[in-house]
Amino acid sequence: MANTKNVEQITSMDVDFAQWYTDVVTRAELIDYSGVKGFFVLRPYGYAIWENIQAELDRRFKDTGHENVSMPLLISESLLQKEKDHVEGFAPECAWVTFGGEEELEERMCIRPTSETLFCDHWARTVRSWRDLPKLYNQWCSVLRWEKSTRPFLRHREFLWQEGHTLHATAQEAIEETERMLDVYADVYENILAMPVLKGLKTDKEKFAGAERTYTIECMMHDKKALQSCTSHYFGDGFARAFDITFADKENSLQYPFETSWGFSTRSIGGVIMTHGDDNGLVMPPRIAPVQIVVIPVASHKPGVLESARELRDELKRAGLRVNIDESDNSPGWKFAEHEMRGVPLRIEIGPRDIEAGKCVAVSRVDGTKTEIPIDTAPERAKQLLDAAHELMYTRAKARLDENTRTATTMDEIKTIVTEKGGFITTAWCGDEACEVKMKEDAGVTSRCIPFEGEKPSEICPVCGKKAEKTIVWGVAY
Amino acid sequence: MANTKNVEQITSMDVDFAQWYTDVVTRAELIDYSGVKGFFVLRPYGYAIWENIQAELDRRFKDTGHENVSMPLLISESLLQKEKDHVEGFAPECAWVTFGGEEELEERMCIRPTSETLFCDHWARTVRSWRDLPKLYNQWCSVLRWEKSTRPFLRHREFLWQEGHTLHATAQEAIEETERMLDVYADVYENILAMPVLKGLKTDKEKFAGAERTYTIECMMHDKKALQSCTSHYFGDGFARAFDITFADKENSLQYPFETSWGFSTRSIGGVIMTHGDDNGLVMPPRIAPVQIVVIPVASHKPGVLESARELRDELKRAGLRVNIDESDNSPGWKFAEHEMRGVPLRIEIGPRDIEAGKCVAVSRVDGTKTEIPIDTAPERAKQLLDAAHELMYTRAKARLDENTRTATTMDEIKTIVTEKGGFITTAWCGDEACEVKMKEDAGVTSRCIPFEGEKPSEICPVCGKKAEKTIVWGVAY
Repeated sequence: MANTKNVEQITSMDVDFAQWYTDVVTRAELIDYSGVKGFFVLRPYGYAIWENIQAELDRRFKDTGHENVSMPLLISESLLQKEKDHVEGFAPECAWVTFGGEEELEERMCIRPTSETLFCDHWARTVRSWRDLPKLYNQWCSVLRWEKSTRPFLRHREFLWQEGHTLHATAQEAIEETERMLDVYADVYENILAMPVLKGLKTDKEKFAGAERTYTIECMMHDKKALQSCTSHYFGDGFARAFDITFADKENSLQYPFETSWGFSTRSIGGVIMTHGDDNGLVMPPRIAPVQIVVIPVASHKPGVLESARELRDELKRAGLRVNIDESDNSPGWKFAEHEMRGVPLRIEIGPRDIEAGKCVAVSRVDGTKTEIPIDTAPERAKQLLDAAHELMYTRAKARLDENTRTATTMDEIKTIVTEKGGFITTAWCGDEACEVKMKEDAGVTSRCIPFEGEKPSEICPVCGKKAEKTIVWGVAY
Repeated sequence: MANTKNVEQITSMDVDFAQWYTDVVTRAELIDYSGVKGFFVLRPYGYAIWENIQAELDRRFKDTGHENVSMPLLISESLLQKEKDHVEGFAPECAWVTFGGEEELEERMCIRPTSETLFCDHWARTVRSWRDLPKLYNQWCSVLRWEKSTRPFLRHREFLWQEGHTLHATAQEAIEETERMLDVYADVYENILAMPVLKGLKTDKEKFAGAERTYTIECMMHDKKALQSCTSHYFGDGFARAFDITFADKENSLQYPFETSWGFSTRSIGGVIMTHGDDNGLVMPPRIAPVQIVVIPVASHKPGVLESARELRDELKRAGLRVNIDESDNSPGWKFAEHEMRGVPLRIEIGPRDIEAGKCVAVSRVDGTKTEIPIDTAPERAKQLLDAAHELMYTRAKARLDENTRTATTMDEIKTIVTEKGGFITTAWCGDEACEVKMKEDAGVTSRCIPFEGEKPSEICPVCGKKAEKTIVWGVAY
């Protein structure tokens, strides 16, 4: 059946990156703007990407000893208010429930913007002894933050995520957990999503409400802007004190435990799109692509072609690959464009002459390379080509990140880079929040992180001229 | 490490079934009563059961062509009001959001009690042609209904579920889908949860708000009460008309499509507990048990015992089984009681003499049978024993259902059964709602379903004495 959908061109990235992004998200049917203002529908293709990311994360969480749980959707106001910094950070963007059925609630409740308070409330009732620790919990859910303006995947009023919450007997152990989970995230970004990462600590100004430390992964998008891609927080014993969570240690003396939390959301899908996409649409990293291979029968009316194409599809599926076949009566050109738009990593064309020669033609979405592969080793060869596509995607993104990360020592240098080149700028920093504020005002960039690696470019803070203890990375962020 | 937890006895089922249920749910650490009133925490063991049920359902949904999506959490009031019967049914139990941050909303929004209106809103924007049909969607999420009184798993203000929503070109196709998904549910209940089912149609009085037909699966609990265990709804084109969803058919004439929805929730876990549990605690159906086998080293201080026990555990794990080992220094008696309480289907004891003889001892949670099995074929034998446990659980539950399903032809007979025996009562029925109301008033039972199978016990309705066209099953329900 011929598809009647209007194959509209998408806006070129170079003409209007924001419009390109919106075009891709809607044309590839990842998202629909819901009739409920500020909310989005994740359509099957978009949700399937999330399911594949979930599977990769969930396996790693379980391998590192974490257990999934489910906490309530609502938080009563008094519970939210127990930790002072936390409520200050989140209350202004909470959605409030005031009526249950026809009755006005005695105490209003917010829809969880994040669930630290709920985990603490549970632990205060259930943790008693050092034997109960550590608690290594995770929750898959959605959270709600009443954003003024929204963009698909990048900023939703409601977004899907996982939130890990853990409780430990010592600060050291909690810090190790915070860093371990950042590494798990980095592993998924690099080895699954083919996105190189910049890891570091957030400044006090940028850290999570209530945290002692926030670790972050920052990625560079195609337009050289930064995407804060996930975070991991160390809370010290602040929440434990606020919620009166104590445990008896081995000497039977009461102690406050130490807490962490860490989250990874559907925002990552926005990162995938803006890292790998091109003017033909999405480019899906092979390891999370809902469809890794599309088989296109060429001259499918000729005897035996459809049968051979289906056999090939079945053979690839049996090898554990995610495969579709396009048997529609659309033209080959239309099909190529459509599956390119949807970012399918590998297209395999098979026609009468291929079948005669016992081969088929694999075309990579990443760089258009055509590879003739024998039909009888197609599954193995397809896997190699998918791995190669992943590597190429990573390498390209890494080159872009490296090329567009520059050091600077003076405000003039910084301003020149911002206006002429964009990207990340590494400088020294005195550690003073006032200099972050001034940097934003004067150069239009915010601090992305205090990176784990890299040398300090100078000994003085380019903003105030005072002695600089730290290295910091600046950028324009989503 | 010795566990300091107070091993409290649970109330006997016969003494107080409701208290037995609460004891099991809390002592087995399935659930914690949240500090947020009316809400529950699903703890790791409880959530793991749900994850296993999810995996079984999700695989079946995908095998029958369904795709997962994610719809918004909130429904604006005007959207909820589009279908008259639906809003009448659900508005009284909605939680209402009236503030976003510090601003009062122009239009209040409810937290989804179910998502028909959201799927319809999406389809009204995206469905155009017969080529777009059918839409076979599913969503994993939680929904919220402001219940006055709650019970773990059975009645939560918020509960986890899946809701399937589908859209079809013809009524026939939609009805087939409604019935197909009921069969998928029955398959999971019988072959995964080891729970026999009674399938049928709900009466008009009991059907879902807005549905033309509601199909139901009713299960009988240990106390002979009925649990409505899941439902599947056929909506006709009512929602399509209310939301103005139309498609161009092959002759290019505009038509209204036909809709279904079907849901399966964490309530099923309550059903599992009340079907299979006993005075020693939970009895988990092997196919969803978070831990299928617990290995208990006996005299573990003796050389080689712990090593052999761990090897056995690893061997069982490699065979794809879910296995724990209990290496704690609690007494064997304490360990046996604890893992029985948690319903682990198979306990494998291994001590010095067993190791010498190349065997171990498997003890079934269902009936306490001890089986000596050779260590070198342990995985295979364990699988057989788990399958046998499943069969025995099903057979026992089926016998209870059959024994406690009785026919009756007069009100006196019905009342006698209700007061002296309990269980399900099959009678003839005139089809009049007034007779359902009277049956509830006079005999204290409600209609469970119009069953698919079984003969009509008489030709007249026992309530009104009029001619009866239908067969109906009555019971006391959770």
